Amino acid sequence: MKFDVFADLQYTANSAGTIILNIHALRTPNQNVVSETFSMQPYIKTEELVSNHGEHRLVRFEVAQPGEIKINYKATVDNAYKLVDLSNVEETPVHLLPAEVLEYLNPSRYCQSDKLFRLANNMFGFIEKPFKKVTTLVDWIYYNVQYLSGSTNSQTSAFDTVTEQAGVCRDFAHLGIALCRALTIPARYFTGYAYKLYPADFHACFEAYIGGEWILF
Amino acid sequence: MKFDVFADLQYTANSAGTIILNIHALRTPNQNVVSETFSMQPYIKTEELVSNHGEHRLVRFEVAQPGEIKINYKATVDNAYKLVDLSNVEETPVHLLPAEVLEYLNPSRYCQSDKLFRLANNMFGFIEKPFKKVTTLVDWIYYNVQYLSGSTNSQTSAFDTVTEQAGVCRDFAHLGIALCRALTIPARYFTGYAYKLYPADFHACFEAYIGGEWILF
Amino acid sequence: MKFDVFADLQYTANSAGTIILNIHALRTPNQNVVSETFSMQPYIKTEELVSNHGEHRLVRFEVAQPGEIKINYKATVDNAYKLVDLSNVEETPVHLLPAEVLEYLNPSRYCQSDKLFRLANNMFGFIEKPFKKVTTLVDWIYYNVQYLSGSTNSQTSAFDTVTEQAGVCRDFAHLGIALCRALTIPARYFTGYAYKLYPADFHACFEAYIGGEWILF
Amino acid sequence: MKFDVFADLQYTANSAGTIILNIHALRTPNQNVVSETFSMQPYIKTEELVSNHGEHRLVRFEVAQPGEIKINYKATVDNAYKLVDLSNVEETPVHLLPAEVLEYLNPSRYCQSDKLFRLANNMFGFIEKPFKKVTTLVDWIYYNVQYLSGSTNSQTSAFDTVTEQAGVCRDFAHLGIALCRALTIPARYFTGYAYKLYPADFHACFEAYIGGEWILF
Repeated sequence: MKFDVFADLQYTANSAGTIILNIHALRTPNQNVVSETFSMQPYIKTEELVSNHGEHRLVRFEVAQPGEIKINYKATVDNAYKLVDLSNVEETPVHLLPAEVLEYLNPSRYCQSDKLFRLANNMFGFIEKPFKKVTTLVDWIYYNVQYLSGSTNSQTSAFDTVTEQAGVCRDFAHLGIALCRALTIPARYFTGYAYKLYPADFHACFEAYIGGEWILF
Repeated sequence: MKFDVFADLQYTANSAGTIILNIHALRTPNQNVVSETFSMQPYIKTEELVSNHGEHRLVRFEVAQPGEIKINYKATVDNAYKLVDLSNVEETPVHLLPAEVLEYLNPSRYCQSDKLFRLANNMFGFIEKPFKKVTTLVDWIYYNVQYLSGSTNSQTSAFDTVTEQAGVCRDFAHLGIALCRALTIPARYFTGYAYKLYPADFHACFEAYIGGEWILF
Repeated sequence: MKFDVFADLQYTANSAGTIILNIHALRTPNQNVVSETFSMQPYIKTEELVSNHGEHRLVRFEVAQPGEIKINYKATVDNAYKLVDLSNVEETPVHLLPAEVLEYLNPSRYCQSDKLFRLANNMFGFIEKPFKKVTTLVDWIYYNVQYLSGSTNSQTSAFDTVTEQAGVCRDFAHLGIALCRALTIPARYFTGYAYKLYPADFHACFEAYIGGEWILF
Repeated sequence: MKFDVFADLQYTANSAGTIILNIHALRTPNQNVVSETFSMQPYIKTEELVSNHGEHRLVRFEVAQPGEIKINYKATVDNAYKLVDLSNVEETPVHLLPAEVLEYLNPSRYCQSDKLFRLANNMFGFIEKPFKKVTTLVDWIYYNVQYLSGSTNSQTSAFDTVTEQAGVCRDFAHLGIALCRALTIPARYFTGYAYKLYPADFHACFEAYIGGEWILF
């Protein structure tokens, strides 16, 4: 399926500095970037930074002086997706995980899976198959955590959200990731262009590594 | 029933200062202190501080210089208790609570009931009667929080324990109190001499205010 | 000096419940409430709750059903104040503090003085006299913590503010209290009607117990 | 200079699982691993995982069943070091940092630099050169944070330590890293074999990226 996505961003720089944007559509085996344009006003030379395993395509540029910066990004992407039945897939033992996936078992700034270890295992540890574990914990999050715009900020983490039970998609994703990792299921943050959202905005969800693939939840 | 209780305490004071002990058996309508002795070595003049509503009997004394202090307390208390069936008692509306009970609805250092508000109401809010609410949340705590000596310290609070799910009786009590308060049930910390515990020690639990009385959980 | 104060409050009750207001001017030896009126629309019978040592005058009333509630409070108060030179006053040892002051040495929900113990003593412990300790820590707060409306909320505590260094008067007060208590100086929250503030609002600061008196900072 | 290092580790596995060790000496331009032996009892086949930019050499192996595992590692390494005078080096602007260094500006599980942003800049932001910034903050840590074995655990983070001011080398390092990142100086955790420590143990410190190099602090 083809999608047109765009981002119109406007910043007021109060001082000189550097901006790093994470708005470019990824190029992956399942996502072909058919066309894209990126423009800025005023023009600044940019540099693209692609992470080793293709987790993100960053664009970095210097802001030499204070002032207004307008950024416009447009892309047409062609997404191949497939429906897979993972309900009977077994958990991958840690010694068989690809090396580059291991880091997604570690706790991180917003996903303190170490602190959620007992909770996650008390709540979801008894579920046998990993896919069912993740769908169950996602259901639990959506059922218990209230979507409440403005209730959280850039410092809110999964450790807060699991108890305070309010937040936005970013917080839902952090909590999902932390619970997965606490269950020894690799998980990572996913941000994308939301489909049919007005006004248009980015959306956050997460991916879990099940059956040798990153699955979007 | 009559009980003999005792506390043998030994402190090494590294500097001059003040010690405030909370080891004296309370005198309440249901607890008669038949006899008690309190002695110290070396002898220091003490002062008894009784709180307004009898929540504690503190003993305060000055430590004038560094050194060893041995304290011995013994008491025989006669406890009247009664079994009450509270299963059908309704919640007391806040406007009908005695004024001196109101503060036990507030969050406190170890019982951040404000942060547990949504969690408590998501988990236990649907239960109609307050006694059942409290017994259910106590069961939840005992079933999910692992008793693990040394896993927590004097800074651990209910906000930690509700997620980390390990601790000792003190932490169990703090969590119970925080959940009650989040459910608009007044609750307070209770510490006493444990019965038939070897080695002898204090024990912590909590009281909730239901049906016009403080009930021990 | 005489002051006219007022509060116009309007609530929308989404459900039945209880409201407890803390807006009445205190009656103290230094503050005479010359006149006051309190009215509500619709009329609801209220009850005044005065704490044992006069720390607050609460008004409690039942809200029997959802709806709008308008509250109007007006008072004329006559304040006697005195300027005292506390610069040479010594710290009061804990064993000489009045019993009712002791609780203001304890950590509380928003003032985790136990966690700030080393920090407070590293930063201000070397200062000899308590008055100078408090004025120095207040200066430190005003110099380092940015007044930033909207940066904090009702869950923010001194433990957050001492590091995040942004907040409003409430957060400044909590931090001041926590630092005082960590230095073994009793301290408590103070809220009042701000003088010459437009739009009119409550203001928070704190009191420390120095030289046998509660001093406003 | 040549050093002999060793690690004797003994684990009791309560269940089957995976162990990932981070005990192998790195091979870097400045560190030649002259010889090394790694042995286990019982023998288990291991796999070496080297991160992309050589930050660590992990060894992973499956533990197929509960039981005792003894691990022995010995190495002789030849370290070249140089003394560099960085006192006049300027800060590297973010747009000129190598791409693989950028992630070390991000907050992480134990180093919440976002929360320490104002504090770090209030305390050290006025210092002009990055080397002096880091040496000053390291001095501040050593002067204020008490080395107190057992006072922290695997959940303690820089956000805790900056206020509680007690910990071990791991906590000192986390705090140093968080402060550097809050000052826009890339920093990362460093763990190694302590020289002349009895009993022998690992030691933690940190590296900051100054003048195009990772400098050990």
